[in-house]
Amino acid sequence: MVEKGALMGESERGAATREHILATATAMFGEAGYRGASLRDIAARCGLTHPGLLYHFPTKAGLLEAVLQRRDQDDTERAGTNERGLAALNALVGVARKNSGTRGLVELFATLSAEATAPDHPAHAYFVARYERVVREITEHFVELVEDGEARPGLDPQAAGRQWVALMDGLQIQWLLNPETDMAAVLKAHLDAQLA
Amino acid sequence: MVEKGALMGESERGAATREHILATATAMFGEAGYRGASLRDIAARCGLTHPGLLYHFPTKAGLLEAVLQRRDQDDTERAGTNERGLAALNALVGVARKNSGTRGLVELFATLSAEATAPDHPAHAYFVARYERVVREITEHFVELVEDGEARPGLDPQAAGRQWVALMDGLQIQWLLNPETDMAAVLKAHLDAQLA
Repeated sequence: MVEKGALMGESERGAATREHILATATAMFGEAGYRGASLRDIAARCGLTHPGLLYHFPTKAGLLEAVLQRRDQDDTERAGTNERGLAALNALVGVARKNSGTRGLVELFATLSAEATAPDHPAHAYFVARYERVVREITEHFVELVEDGEARPGLDPQAAGRQWVALMDGLQIQWLLNPETDMAAVLKAHLDAQLA
Repeated sequence: MVEKGALMGESERGAATREHILATATAMFGEAGYRGASLRDIAARCGLTHPGLLYHFPTKAGLLEAVLQRRDQDDTERAGTNERGLAALNALVGVARKNSGTRGLVELFATLSAEATAPDHPAHAYFVARYERVVREITEHFVELVEDGEARPGLDPQAAGRQWVALMDGLQIQWLLNPETDMAAVLKAHLDAQLA
């Protein structure tokens, strides 16, 4: 019993340390890129020794994978709807608005998605798959917009899906460089122009 | 005379070496990011010693600045028009088409523009100024589109300028991750939707 209790305490501390490492790595990968941030630097900012960090994440690629998985989970929770068509697209404008509150994560994804276009990057396969999925999902919302009779005449869901994803990515860069950029307003103006 | 000739030969060799370093640095900053590529690695790929590289570019930040200046010059030569409104926007669709032939440069700008959103990055001021200028120029083309009576009703040149820049940036990421992405076609579809 005592032993089990001690182990649980240890595992809770372990979970807290793991969470702390993930938050720090998120910030540092966002600032310096995956390739620019070393495990030693991340350990130092966490107040851990290098072996102490390796105990939780034996490889840098594994740490990156955990950071990306955590972000995807957050995203799903934030978007978290089964909405379709216009309602789903409006919800994504809301995501752009909320992103203004999480600069570190936006930096992380902007930097990594660019860096990971190199085929030998450890997150390359992740980003290829992620973009395929996101473009497909948003294209589907534009198909629904057409089905619901709410799209402007001549709207091509395929092009509209790619445009939407590109706009969200590109506006993040503009906002990171100039925080006065109103990502949600520019995206909403684009959405309005797609409507009947 | 002999001395002068010898010096000229040396300066020509120097220019060729400098050009070789710039091309190599462009590729490596594009692959690994500015922070991920070291001067030692760049020197090695150029077949130079580290001091040999430092003779031409004493600092990494100086090398980055030279890489960016060379790209801006190329861009101006490629766009190189005094066109206005619709003609200018169509010319930019052509730039997106030509970019498909220069993957290294596209990687460089995608990676650096994201990495340089960090305020302490040596190219931060460059990218802040670059985006201000590019958004201003493209917004101006949309103002001209409205003046020329060629814009759809209700087009907001300010939002349209930011959308256009975001589209070009975001489509580059999609194309780098999936070379089947037709950047020019998606951009052209967007342009068509802005017309009367």
